[in-house]
Amino acid sequence: MNINAIVVGATGYGGLELIRILLQHPSVSISHLFAHSQGYDSILDLYPQLRDVIDIPVDTLDQLTEEKIKELKEASDIVFLGTPSGVSKEWGPIFLNQGFKVIDLSGDFRLKDPASYEKWYGKEAPEQSYLQKAIYGLSEWFSDDIKEADYIANPGCYATSILLALAPIFSHQLPVKSVIIDAKSGVSGAGRGLNRSTHFSEVNDNFKAYKVGTHQHIPEIEQTLSQIGGKAVTVQMMTHLIPMTRGILSTIYVDFYEEISKEEMISIYQEDYQNQPFVRLRPYGEFPETKQVYGTNYCDVGFYVDTRTKRLILFSVIDNLMKGAAGQAVQNLNIMMGWDQQLGLKFIPTYP
Amino acid sequence: MNINAIVVGATGYGGLELIRILLQHPSVSISHLFAHSQGYDSILDLYPQLRDVIDIPVDTLDQLTEEKIKELKEASDIVFLGTPSGVSKEWGPIFLNQGFKVIDLSGDFRLKDPASYEKWYGKEAPEQSYLQKAIYGLSEWFSDDIKEADYIANPGCYATSILLALAPIFSHQLPVKSVIIDAKSGVSGAGRGLNRSTHFSEVNDNFKAYKVGTHQHIPEIEQTLSQIGGKAVTVQMMTHLIPMTRGILSTIYVDFYEEISKEEMISIYQEDYQNQPFVRLRPYGEFPETKQVYGTNYCDVGFYVDTRTKRLILFSVIDNLMKGAAGQAVQNLNIMMGWDQQLGLKFIPTYP
Amino acid sequence: MNINAIVVGATGYGGLELIRILLQHPSVSISHLFAHSQGYDSILDLYPQLRDVIDIPVDTLDQLTEEKIKELKEASDIVFLGTPSGVSKEWGPIFLNQGFKVIDLSGDFRLKDPASYEKWYGKEAPEQSYLQKAIYGLSEWFSDDIKEADYIANPGCYATSILLALAPIFSHQLPVKSVIIDAKSGVSGAGRGLNRSTHFSEVNDNFKAYKVGTHQHIPEIEQTLSQIGGKAVTVQMMTHLIPMTRGILSTIYVDFYEEISKEEMISIYQEDYQNQPFVRLRPYGEFPETKQVYGTNYCDVGFYVDTRTKRLILFSVIDNLMKGAAGQAVQNLNIMMGWDQQLGLKFIPTYP
Amino acid sequence: MNINAIVVGATGYGGLELIRILLQHPSVSISHLFAHSQGYDSILDLYPQLRDVIDIPVDTLDQLTEEKIKELKEASDIVFLGTPSGVSKEWGPIFLNQGFKVIDLSGDFRLKDPASYEKWYGKEAPEQSYLQKAIYGLSEWFSDDIKEADYIANPGCYATSILLALAPIFSHQLPVKSVIIDAKSGVSGAGRGLNRSTHFSEVNDNFKAYKVGTHQHIPEIEQTLSQIGGKAVTVQMMTHLIPMTRGILSTIYVDFYEEISKEEMISIYQEDYQNQPFVRLRPYGEFPETKQVYGTNYCDVGFYVDTRTKRLILFSVIDNLMKGAAGQAVQNLNIMMGWDQQLGLKFIPTYP
Repeated sequence: MNINAIVVGATGYGGLELIRILLQHPSVSISHLFAHSQGYDSILDLYPQLRDVIDIPVDTLDQLTEEKIKELKEASDIVFLGTPSGVSKEWGPIFLNQGFKVIDLSGDFRLKDPASYEKWYGKEAPEQSYLQKAIYGLSEWFSDDIKEADYIANPGCYATSILLALAPIFSHQLPVKSVIIDAKSGVSGAGRGLNRSTHFSEVNDNFKAYKVGTHQHIPEIEQTLSQIGGKAVTVQMMTHLIPMTRGILSTIYVDFYEEISKEEMISIYQEDYQNQPFVRLRPYGEFPETKQVYGTNYCDVGFYVDTRTKRLILFSVIDNLMKGAAGQAVQNLNIMMGWDQQLGLKFIPTYP
Repeated sequence: MNINAIVVGATGYGGLELIRILLQHPSVSISHLFAHSQGYDSILDLYPQLRDVIDIPVDTLDQLTEEKIKELKEASDIVFLGTPSGVSKEWGPIFLNQGFKVIDLSGDFRLKDPASYEKWYGKEAPEQSYLQKAIYGLSEWFSDDIKEADYIANPGCYATSILLALAPIFSHQLPVKSVIIDAKSGVSGAGRGLNRSTHFSEVNDNFKAYKVGTHQHIPEIEQTLSQIGGKAVTVQMMTHLIPMTRGILSTIYVDFYEEISKEEMISIYQEDYQNQPFVRLRPYGEFPETKQVYGTNYCDVGFYVDTRTKRLILFSVIDNLMKGAAGQAVQNLNIMMGWDQQLGLKFIPTYP
Repeated sequence: MNINAIVVGATGYGGLELIRILLQHPSVSISHLFAHSQGYDSILDLYPQLRDVIDIPVDTLDQLTEEKIKELKEASDIVFLGTPSGVSKEWGPIFLNQGFKVIDLSGDFRLKDPASYEKWYGKEAPEQSYLQKAIYGLSEWFSDDIKEADYIANPGCYATSILLALAPIFSHQLPVKSVIIDAKSGVSGAGRGLNRSTHFSEVNDNFKAYKVGTHQHIPEIEQTLSQIGGKAVTVQMMTHLIPMTRGILSTIYVDFYEEISKEEMISIYQEDYQNQPFVRLRPYGEFPETKQVYGTNYCDVGFYVDTRTKRLILFSVIDNLMKGAAGQAVQNLNIMMGWDQQLGLKFIPTYP
Repeated sequence: MNINAIVVGATGYGGLELIRILLQHPSVSISHLFAHSQGYDSILDLYPQLRDVIDIPVDTLDQLTEEKIKELKEASDIVFLGTPSGVSKEWGPIFLNQGFKVIDLSGDFRLKDPASYEKWYGKEAPEQSYLQKAIYGLSEWFSDDIKEADYIANPGCYATSILLALAPIFSHQLPVKSVIIDAKSGVSGAGRGLNRSTHFSEVNDNFKAYKVGTHQHIPEIEQTLSQIGGKAVTVQMMTHLIPMTRGILSTIYVDFYEEISKEEMISIYQEDYQNQPFVRLRPYGEFPETKQVYGTNYCDVGFYVDTRTKRLILFSVIDNLMKGAAGQAVQNLNIMMGWDQQLGLKFIPTYP
C-alpha cells in the first residue's frame, strides 16, 4: 500500500527533515507542502539543495479553505504538522475533523493537563476533547496506542532522549530517589527562526545554559515517567546549547533508595530494548557520542554505575531532527500503518 | 546480479564511507574488510556507530598470502582500495593479478607519466604496465573506458570538484588563456591520521593555505584537462583548510582570449551535463554551498560571467568523502557492472 | 595628554571592539556610548561580559539635539562612528561641524567618486565637500594625511587585508598584468544583525561564496591601488564565508608582464614594511593563518613565487574586527594625536 | 621590583599562554624557555604568531645540569612548570632545591594523600616532604598560604571552575546533602599532544562524555571542599568535550538537608566574593557563557534556586587556559610577590 502525505511547516528544519525521509520512504509520497507564514513557488527557492529531488510549491496555510482541505483529503491520508506550538493547536483539529490522521511535531497536544500547558507554554491549552484524542508518540513505549491513534503528539527532542534512557527504570519500578538531567543540544533544535542566541558569532566557540528552570519539555518528561512508573515523578532538567548543528546528549544522574548493581541494570535495559531496533544499548563502559547517530533514527544509550557514589549515570544521544522529531514521526506513521517500524528509516550514521 | 566486495583500508574515512554506501547498495554485499596497519576483531571496536549495522572483523593486509587471496577471489569480485598512496601501489597489482577488479581511491595510478608521479608524490612510480591499465575514473567523462576497465584510479577529491567544473570549457575548446583555482576543503580530506594540522585546537576558528605550490592533485588536473581539450594545459591551484569536517568548494577564475557570453556558457554546460544525474548545474546567479551536497554524490556547479573584468568565475562543491572519494568509487563500480550509475547512490543532502 | 572619546554604534561588534581597546588605552577614556537604534540603561544589559570593566548607559542617536552635541564637545574630542553605511553619512558631518574629530568605520566616505558610491552601495552619496575632507585611513600608507585629518574614512576589513598585501607592488610600479583576489572571512564581519546567512545552523560546517561580483569593497581597493600606483587599476575580488568568528585570509594571484624574482619581491616588501610595526612580513615559505593574528592589530603577509606558472601568490591575514575595523581606527587616532601608533595596541595573539 | 621568570613546558598550550601573559606583565620578564621533549632554535619555529614579540630559544630539560640550574638561578627567581604530570614531579624538587620559587601547573603536588595520587594518576606519588611543602594555589581561598609558599600546586582547570562555585557553600557550612557536577570543556584543555579524541574530524560537530568516573580532578575537588568545610566531602563529577577551543562551564546541582532561600545564597556569595576581582558574581537570573570570559582570568558564577525541586543550581565559567591554568598561575605569582593580584592580568574578554 502506498499513501500520500502532506507536510505542513515544510520550511522549518523539522519539515525539511520530513521531506528528506519521506522522499526515500518506499510507501509514502509527498502530495503537498504548506508553510505557516510564507509560501514559495517551489521548495527549491528556499532549499536549492533539493534540486533534481523534489520541485513542488509551498503553499501558505491561510489559503486553506475548508473546501480546499476536503479536496486535499481525496489525495492524501496523512498530515505531518511541523508547525510551532500555537499553530498546531489551531490546524491540527481542522485536519483531524476532515478525516486526516495527524502527526503533530509541536508541543501543543503532549500535556494532558491544560493547566500544565498554560503554565509551561504561556498560552491557552487546546480543547480538552482533542487533548484526550492525542496519543503521546514515544514509539518504543506506546506502540499499541499509536497503532490505533488518529492524532499523534510527537515527543519533544530532549524528552525523547531522556525518556528512552529513563523509562526502563520506571517501568521496572526501581526505588528511584532523585533524577537530575543535564541535557545539551546542538543549535538546529532552536529551528530556522532568526534569534540572537542562534546568531553564529554568538554561538560559535561558546557554551551556555538556557531556559534555566523553565524548559517546556520538563512537564512532558514528568508526565510520561509518572505514567510509565505508575506514580508521580519530579525531575530536575537543565538545557545547554552546544556550538554544533545536530545532536542531543543527555547525562542523567539517578539516585536510588537501595544500591543497584551493574548486572541488574544491564538485564533491565536488555529486557526492555532488545527488540527495539532504534534503541541501541551500548556495551557497559562504552559511552555514546552525538555524531554516532548523526542523520539517523537511533537513540544510543550507555550507562555507568558509580560504586564510589552509589549512583547510576545514564548517557543518551539522538539526532534531534531525526529521532527527536522527523524520524520518530515517520516511525509513528509506520506503526499507525501496521508497517515494519524501520520502513524507510534504516539510515546509517554519516561519520565523520 | 549481486556481487561481493572487499574494502581494503576500511578504517580510514574513505573506507568508512564506502561501508556506509555499500551497506545500502541493493546489489553489493561486503565480504571482507582489511586495514593496512592495524586490525580489529570487529569494525565496531573502531566505529561503534555501526552497531546493529555491520559486525565483521578487520584483518590486516600482511596476513594476506597469495593463497588467501585466491580464496577471497572465490567469494568476491571487487576490491576497493581505500589505502594511502604507496600502499595501493603495492597491493593493487596483487589483487589485479588474481582476477579482481580494483577500484583504487589513492593517487598511485592516476598519473600516466612516472616522472610526474615521482616529482609530486616523492616516491617511485608504479610499473608502467600497470599505469597503462589503470583508467582515470572521472565518471562523467570517461564512462566508456570505465565500463571496460579492470583497474580504476579513482580521482582525487580536489581534482573531481575542479575537473567537473572546468571540463566543458576544454571539451568545447574555448580559447582559454589562464586558469586559477582557489580551492578550500574541510578537514576530513586529510584523513584519520593524527597530525598537527588536523589537531582540533589548531584548526578550529582558524583558516589557512597549505601545500602551497606543491599539492599532488595539480598534475592530475592538468593531465586530465589536457586530455579532454587535446592540448597541454597549465593551471594554478591553491588549497586551503576550512574549519569544518566535510566539503570542498573550488572557486575558479578563467580568462579567455575572446569574450564569452553568459548564454554561451549556459548552453555549453547544459549540453555536457543535462544527462548527468550527479552534476547539478545551478541556475545562473545561484551559487552552491558545500552543505548543499553533504553526504551525497552530487557535484553542484554555478558560475558568474563578470562583465567588469571579462572573466568567468566557476563555483563547484562536492562532499569530499562522497563524490570526492567513496561515492564516485561506487558510481564507477555501477558503470563497470553495467548498472544504472545512480544505483545505491541516491542520497539526499542532510541539511542543516 | 589624555583625551575623551565617544563611541557611536557601541552595540555592534565594531563598537564593542572599540570599547575593549579604548578601555585598555593609556591615553583615552570613553565618555559616552551611543547606539543607532536601541539604547540601554547600561552596556552591561547587552554585553554582560563587561561587568566590573565598564558600566555606563548607551543612549540613542535620536536623542541628540544640537545643543546636546555641543555639551558633549566640552567633554570629548573624538567620535568613533561604528554605525552602518547610511547612518554615518548622516551623523558624521553633524559631529564634524561641532568640531569633533571623527573616525568613521563605515563605507560612507571612502569612495571619492559619488557615482561609484551610488553604484556599489545603492544609496545617495554624501555631499562632495565632506567626501573631500575625509581621509582614507589605511594607516601604513597615508599617515601624513591622517595626521592632519579631521575626518577619517576607516578602511573596510577586506580592503585592509588586500591593500596591505598589494600596495608595495603598486608603489614600486611593478608591471602588473592582472590581480585576482580570493578572500575569505569569518562571520563576525557580517555584524551583529540577524540574517539567514549568519544563522548558526546555516553557516556551521558550511562554506560558500557571497556577494558574487558585487562586494562594495571592490571600488575602495581599486581606488586606493590606483592612487598608490598612479594609474587606473581593475581587480577581480571574490568573498567567501568561513564557519568561524574572526579573521580574514586573502589569497591574491598577481600576473606580471615580466618575470619577477623571489628576491626582488622580498626586497620590495621589506623596504615598505620594515618600519611598520603592525605589518609582519613572514619569512619566505611561511604562510600566515588567521588565528595567528586573533585579537590583535597585526596584518601578516606571506608570499610565494610560483616558478611553474610565473605568478606571485600573496597571503594576507587580519582580525577583521581589529586591523580590519576597531584596531586600525585606534591606530589612526594615535597617528592623528601624534602618539606612537602602537599606543594601547600591543596585543599578543590569543592562541589557540 | 622586576623579576625574571623561566617557563618550563613552554611549547604546550599552558606554556604558550604563560608567555602571552608574562610578556604583558609590567614586573616580570621571561629569561628562559624550556620544553620537556623537543627544543627549538626559537619559539617562533613553533609559534610564528609570536613574531616581533619574542624570539628566544626553547631548550630541552635534559640539557639542564645542576651547574646550569645554578647559573639560571643567578638571573631568575621563579619557575613556571607547564609540564605534564610525572614530569613536574621530577623537575619541581630540583628547581626548588636550588632556591627557585616554583609554580607548577601539573597535578603532581595537588593531592596531599600519596595513595590518592597513585589511585587517580596511576603513578607513584612525589615524596611526602615535597607534598607537604606544596600549597594548593586556589588564589581566592588560600592567599595567606600562597603568600608564604615556595612551591605552588596550581589547581586543575575543572577544579578551579568548580571550587570557586562551591566553596562559599562549604565555608558557610550549609547543610549539603549531595553535590553533582556536570562539567563541560573546550578541547584545548586536552593540550597540544595529538590524540584521536582531539582530532578535528572526530570532535567537530560532536559532543561526548569522557573519563567517565575516573577524572583526576575529582580527588582535588573533594580534598579542597573537605578542607574548606571542615569535614569529608564526596562529589559526583562528570566531564564532557565541547566542540570549541577554550572555556569550561560547570553546571552544579546541590541538594541541602534544609531549604535555602535565594536571598541567603546571594548574601553568602557576596560576602565571600565582593572583594575578589576575578570572581564575578552575576545578578540573580543571569547565567554566564564561556565566551564571556574568553582570554581573561575571570571566573563568572551565576545560580538558580529551583523552588520546584528545592535544589540550588550553580553555573560557573572560566577560560581553561587562563583562570584554569596560566592566568591563575600569574595571579599566584602576584600574591607571592606581594603585588596587586590583578597586576598584568586585567584582560577584557575578546567577544565575539
